[in-house]
Amino acid sequence: MTTRGSRTADVVTAIRARISGGALGVGDRLPSVRRCADAMGVSPSTVVEAYDRLVAEGAIRARAGSGFYVAGAAPALMLTEAGPQFNREIDPLWVSRQSLDAAPDTPRPGCGWLPAEWMPGDAIRRAMRAAARGDDALLAGYSPARGSLPLRRLLARQFAAENLPVASDQILLTGSGSQALDLVCRLLLRPGDTVLVDDPCYFNFRALLRAHRANVVGVPYEADGPNVEQFAQIVAAARPRLYVTNSALHNPTGATISPRVAHRVLNIAAEHDMIVVEDDIFADFEPEPSPRLATLDGLRRVIRIGSFSKTLSASLRCGYIVSTPEWIEALTDLQVATCFSAVCPVAAEVTLSILSDGGYRKHMEALRRRLATARRETTKHLGQIGIFPHLTPRGGFYLWCALPDGVDAATLARIALRDGLVLAPGDVFSVSRTLSGSMRFNVGQMGGRGVYAALRRAVGARVGGGGGV
Amino acid sequence: MTTRGSRTADVVTAIRARISGGALGVGDRLPSVRRCADAMGVSPSTVVEAYDRLVAEGAIRARAGSGFYVAGAAPALMLTEAGPQFNREIDPLWVSRQSLDAAPDTPRPGCGWLPAEWMPGDAIRRAMRAAARGDDALLAGYSPARGSLPLRRLLARQFAAENLPVASDQILLTGSGSQALDLVCRLLLRPGDTVLVDDPCYFNFRALLRAHRANVVGVPYEADGPNVEQFAQIVAAARPRLYVTNSALHNPTGATISPRVAHRVLNIAAEHDMIVVEDDIFADFEPEPSPRLATLDGLRRVIRIGSFSKTLSASLRCGYIVSTPEWIEALTDLQVATCFSAVCPVAAEVTLSILSDGGYRKHMEALRRRLATARRETTKHLGQIGIFPHLTPRGGFYLWCALPDGVDAATLARIALRDGLVLAPGDVFSVSRTLSGSMRFNVGQMGGRGVYAALRRAVGARVGGGGGV
Repeated sequence: MTTRGSRTADVVTAIRARISGGALGVGDRLPSVRRCADAMGVSPSTVVEAYDRLVAEGAIRARAGSGFYVAGAAPALMLTEAGPQFNREIDPLWVSRQSLDAAPDTPRPGCGWLPAEWMPGDAIRRAMRAAARGDDALLAGYSPARGSLPLRRLLARQFAAENLPVASDQILLTGSGSQALDLVCRLLLRPGDTVLVDDPCYFNFRALLRAHRANVVGVPYEADGPNVEQFAQIVAAARPRLYVTNSALHNPTGATISPRVAHRVLNIAAEHDMIVVEDDIFADFEPEPSPRLATLDGLRRVIRIGSFSKTLSASLRCGYIVSTPEWIEALTDLQVATCFSAVCPVAAEVTLSILSDGGYRKHMEALRRRLATARRETTKHLGQIGIFPHLTPRGGFYLWCALPDGVDAATLARIALRDGLVLAPGDVFSVSRTLSGSMRFNVGQMGGRGVYAALRRAVGARVGGGGGV
Repeated sequence: MTTRGSRTADVVTAIRARISGGALGVGDRLPSVRRCADAMGVSPSTVVEAYDRLVAEGAIRARAGSGFYVAGAAPALMLTEAGPQFNREIDPLWVSRQSLDAAPDTPRPGCGWLPAEWMPGDAIRRAMRAAARGDDALLAGYSPARGSLPLRRLLARQFAAENLPVASDQILLTGSGSQALDLVCRLLLRPGDTVLVDDPCYFNFRALLRAHRANVVGVPYEADGPNVEQFAQIVAAARPRLYVTNSALHNPTGATISPRVAHRVLNIAAEHDMIVVEDDIFADFEPEPSPRLATLDGLRRVIRIGSFSKTLSASLRCGYIVSTPEWIEALTDLQVATCFSAVCPVAAEVTLSILSDGGYRKHMEALRRRLATARRETTKHLGQIGIFPHLTPRGGFYLWCALPDGVDAATLARIALRDGLVLAPGDVFSVSRTLSGSMRFNVGQMGGRGVYAALRRAVGARVGGGGGV
């Protein structure tokens, strides 16, 4: 590089720093070429070259006869820095993106779903063939704004059987559990509103709330639900608008809220006029039903959301929201405005058909048995590497584990990724980022080639104090 | 009702009015029972009863030992007032909601899609049966975060053939065209940002931008695109962050942007650093391709969005965004955060299979011929009622029409709805709300029982100066 070239680079770097540091904002005029040249002790032609390069990369733009201005094309909301996945910072989206985009045969102990082969493939195939014989409206038309009425009626009957009596117009079908929460946040949150989540909680709650520009606070989650004393203090002090939680089998801990804690949580919510979003996505994995906030509360201040991605098929993309008729009406408007219609009618039909016959119940019974075995096996094998569950869950496919002393979960996840393994390090679940000694394992995803050996290598590399990360 | 009862009702009404009028905000303390009783000249027990009723309906809440406070449970974002659809105010969501939720045999000249029977049903059935033979990953798994790679590769080849060379990682599959626009707005807009749309424009752009709390301004749209002089003035004065437009066959006018206007629009956008979102959803209805902003610009400041809902199937729920690799990466993060995965992999597979074989091209050719006939027929029949298109579109299924003098489109739509007809009155498309003499007709939805007779009756009722609305 010539001296002139490196001077140009210096000017480019200096201007970039002033933009990224905020000294120059969008639309601000840059110093004139002469002033910049004087200030930096370079020739005007060096500055011209530097400005040209900044124009080319889109950082600034020229206005004829008027000079150079900071460009405004930068996105308003980046959830993470763009860049290659491999070097990506471990943030709340890291596990999702690595899990979704890994090569098909990559072992994914960190991912949030069961292998597709564990789903009821034959029942789905049968229902798809039946749907292929459906009429044109099913195959090429829109559903009603709230989604398939027969599916909503079936869900209403199921909820009623769980002591949550609702009408079909109190249910809105959505494209997923995440989209259900997204719509609720759109209806109820303004940017800057405070939202309470469990610490740890499902990492995508954190990513989603960041997309809403919410102020997220956490409450420690323990073996029987959130710590009630801290819950009361945090709610009184921070006045959150929403509390978002998983009930039944909590993600990532696998814990279950106790009746006592559930009752207290609802009373504290009522006292401070806080709304509770209860994500029920793992309910069907329970051996027997646990207390449900929506059932205790009767949908006065609890909104229930859920989906079939974990139990039936992630491909069908079907979730739901259960709330008051007024809020469902407003949420339906929001869904029409922002995605017009969320659920593929064919997917709703396939879901309906599988939920309607006895096959789904049998599938879930078999799945629960298979998972009980897998939880035992995984616990045993992890124990041999010095990794132990914080608690023994009643059901589901997560084990929330303590790593050996001195092993940092994020570092372990980076090392393991180089070895072709996607893990879920503790801090992605943690608002306080104090859970770097924990890791979530998916007992349905431990069977791949050499997962435990790779884990053992990664732990060893880390404990050995090396790893080159 | 006793006198006491009506006094209680008076107090309830007065407090409700103070809350809805903003005199009492969320969290504000209500006057004490005694003060309120004195102020309204009623007994304290009447006030206690009124406050209890307001607590029961959730408008206020009691805090032990501290009095009554305005409850904060009201949604932050209602796009419309909740209420029965029949009396619903005619707003940008009115046509969508009426069209989606009408009984199956309701004639819908105002709706935005073709009848399901006009879609390639046999090809969809064939592709569905093939998908039902797919592996478990297809039927029960997630797709990669950006959506099906084979479908993105096919789209990339198609775009390249249209002189828009892109890589497959510059495409993000979304659940719909609306969801594509929604993600772009999430990435690029902050609440309060100004967005420019055409006047008239697709009504759901207005509803969607309202959900983003954007400040929406309009530019008159004419036979060859937006009025360029006004476009330049509005962009210079209002400095919009985005311009959202339909190209190819504009909704609702059916107009096509001219090369001259397209070039000017891009230059003005560049000069003021404005980003353009080009919604291409009607492109395949064109007899021959018209200038495309994304192609002229090469995706520097144009983001292209589209979907297959209008040409192939609304049931499959598959749209896309085409942009730079960096922005697609950021949009993918946003999609994972807010709906995890948008497109049903089976729907993507069915879409891919139909687009891949020659059937889609033949279907579109037949559809274009059928629509040319339908446009002529509809124009003739509407003319007999005194309704005339503002221009003759080159393709597509919309006719943007002038109503007879003195006929208000919203009034006509209300009268027609009582007669079982869903119409699309001009002002729902108009930011300036100055198009109350216009109406959009869908030439594919005019064949139902007695549509023209009902229209004639509605126009007559209106011109006769009555209608009782």
